[in-house]
Amino acid sequence: MDSRAGTRRPHTPGVDIPALNWLDPPAGPAVELLDQTRLPATAAVVTCADVPALVDAIRRLVVRGAPLLGVAGAFGVALAACRGEDVAQAAAMIEQARPTAVNLGWGTRRALAAHQRAWQAGHKDGERMAARAALAEARLIAAGDAAASAAMAAHGLGLIPPGARVLTHCNTGALVSAGEGTAFAVILAAHRAGRLAMLWVDETRPLLQGARLTAFEAGRAGIPHAVLADAAAASLLAAGQVDVVLTGADRIAADGSVANKVGTYGLAVLAGHHRVPFVVVAPMSTIDRDTPDGASIIVEHRPADEVTSMAGRPVAPAGTSAYNPAFDVTPPGMLTAIVTERGVAQPVNAGTLRVLSAGPGSAEGPPADVYVER
Amino acid sequence: MDSRAGTRRPHTPGVDIPALNWLDPPAGPAVELLDQTRLPATAAVVTCADVPALVDAIRRLVVRGAPLLGVAGAFGVALAACRGEDVAQAAAMIEQARPTAVNLGWGTRRALAAHQRAWQAGHKDGERMAARAALAEARLIAAGDAAASAAMAAHGLGLIPPGARVLTHCNTGALVSAGEGTAFAVILAAHRAGRLAMLWVDETRPLLQGARLTAFEAGRAGIPHAVLADAAAASLLAAGQVDVVLTGADRIAADGSVANKVGTYGLAVLAGHHRVPFVVVAPMSTIDRDTPDGASIIVEHRPADEVTSMAGRPVAPAGTSAYNPAFDVTPPGMLTAIVTERGVAQPVNAGTLRVLSAGPGSAEGPPADVYVER
Repeated sequence: MDSRAGTRRPHTPGVDIPALNWLDPPAGPAVELLDQTRLPATAAVVTCADVPALVDAIRRLVVRGAPLLGVAGAFGVALAACRGEDVAQAAAMIEQARPTAVNLGWGTRRALAAHQRAWQAGHKDGERMAARAALAEARLIAAGDAAASAAMAAHGLGLIPPGARVLTHCNTGALVSAGEGTAFAVILAAHRAGRLAMLWVDETRPLLQGARLTAFEAGRAGIPHAVLADAAAASLLAAGQVDVVLTGADRIAADGSVANKVGTYGLAVLAGHHRVPFVVVAPMSTIDRDTPDGASIIVEHRPADEVTSMAGRPVAPAGTSAYNPAFDVTPPGMLTAIVTERGVAQPVNAGTLRVLSAGPGSAEGPPADVYVER
Repeated sequence: MDSRAGTRRPHTPGVDIPALNWLDPPAGPAVELLDQTRLPATAAVVTCADVPALVDAIRRLVVRGAPLLGVAGAFGVALAACRGEDVAQAAAMIEQARPTAVNLGWGTRRALAAHQRAWQAGHKDGERMAARAALAEARLIAAGDAAASAAMAAHGLGLIPPGARVLTHCNTGALVSAGEGTAFAVILAAHRAGRLAMLWVDETRPLLQGARLTAFEAGRAGIPHAVLADAAAASLLAAGQVDVVLTGADRIAADGSVANKVGTYGLAVLAGHHRVPFVVVAPMSTIDRDTPDGASIIVEHRPADEVTSMAGRPVAPAGTSAYNPAFDVTPPGMLTAIVTERGVAQPVNAGTLRVLSAGPGSAEGPPADVYVER
């Protein structure tokens, strides 16, 4: 018997496979992951029966995307707890699997804290109660993510004009979330409201999350869309074919600097040059008040072969070096707005983010109507 | 017996295969092309025994790059003439094979004009004499291109500071020229002068000419280099890791607008934002005085599958649309300089280009010392 991590929509044609799925005993305890490295060609499920397997899956990007990494980290702690392993050590391992996405550590620490609280309560059946608490917290994070997704879509819709041609980078839909995602949730809302004329999808090299995953999700939703080489976005902007750029975020510093998939910063510069609004959509859990500014964000550098080879075949001559940062950092002054489940920070700066953080509502609760305006 | 189109360096490890090679009878008449779509993995030669085969090779990018397309177009006219075919019709076919690269039409028309002059001279053996004239003109274009390449390298070197970290896009070396190329000829000169600390190579999606061909040429020359996803160039610029950006050009309008491989315009905006010089290197034959401005440049759009599939395998879901312009257009105001074999236009505008065009020296002759300064 399995219990799903939040309500989910089908992810592959004719098959309803969630991006992440918790398995209870006797099949589990285990975390099932839809292998995102093989989509859309193959819908394969990777079953992680222990923490090292989950850490490996996170590193290999079998599971990816800021919000879902938070959910995955929490279920990883629950997995260690259910297996009777050292939960603090497991949390540390998971948190270090990828350095840039703040949600991974956030979700991991939340489940760890829930585990520790239950443990310290001194129940007779302490170990089992603590494992239950960690699992309940992971489920709460998943449910909260789904609710946040819906709230971000509602808030973000206000920034999409009728007949909008939207450009997006990387993949921010149901594959990265227990709901409909971040930027892609706004795109879906705009599509349902009849406001979306066109979705331009950056292919997002090196791992092609745009061409593989966003094109797949757009096709399933019936959204008119076209894929482009990342370097072609500039000519679309120059031709006046883009009304707004929407992306997600992997970590937002306290000053509003946004770490996101490499290429986001360049797009923000280009959008600014062409006076096209650039909007980031992310849950409050992506805002890291412990990271003061963009310079403090650690950017993950990934192996050269992601760039020098393609689909397992070498492209560049053997031994060619590569510069392969997974992320880049966009300063707050280049962003038009940050959309969260609590409202919209516009302009983006430490002050407007602080107002959102202090406001009513929470990552798990219903959206509040805090809207920070210019 | 074959006669080479200009003096050439080896292009593959241990094998000396020129990018283009003319074959006389009995093996010919034919144009041999090194298949650039299969490099660096495979060094295969495509033999074009008639004009339709050559047109197909040009369309499929077996042969590519502005200067070499000029050489290829001229040898194509010679091929038609040697086969006793309708030379004017052949020239028209070749010229239409790709719309953006001005050199293709330029080389084709030069060989056609040489053919027509010889024909009109009314020799007893008119057809054979005219074919000879077309072939001689094609060889002259190849030799002129090699000389222009050396002159561009000499002029461009003055724009490269000691210890330079150079970023380049697409492929501009010996594979696109009967000499050492355009931007890459400047890079080689800087390397030989001990001024080059690092060459950053944009992979150049969708066809990866950077990762495949420029990395290959840089490796052979012993230049320290690394390949990057095109979208990662912005973070290199932000990190202060680039001192100058060098690219080639496929067509330069009379006002100095530059059509070049898609991604060039975005790079120019980004370089401008980071106050990094952006320099275009191209022979005078790439300047098209009949195209008044950037808006008049026809940009070739190529098939969707170049973006939606990779190495023959689908990446995006079947049937996904793509926006796939092969080129983009950079306004003259965003360029620091245009380096030609006649000197350097700086700033770039209709006036400085006119001075270069009117100056002494020619595409075939030795470089003059016209240097247009601010």
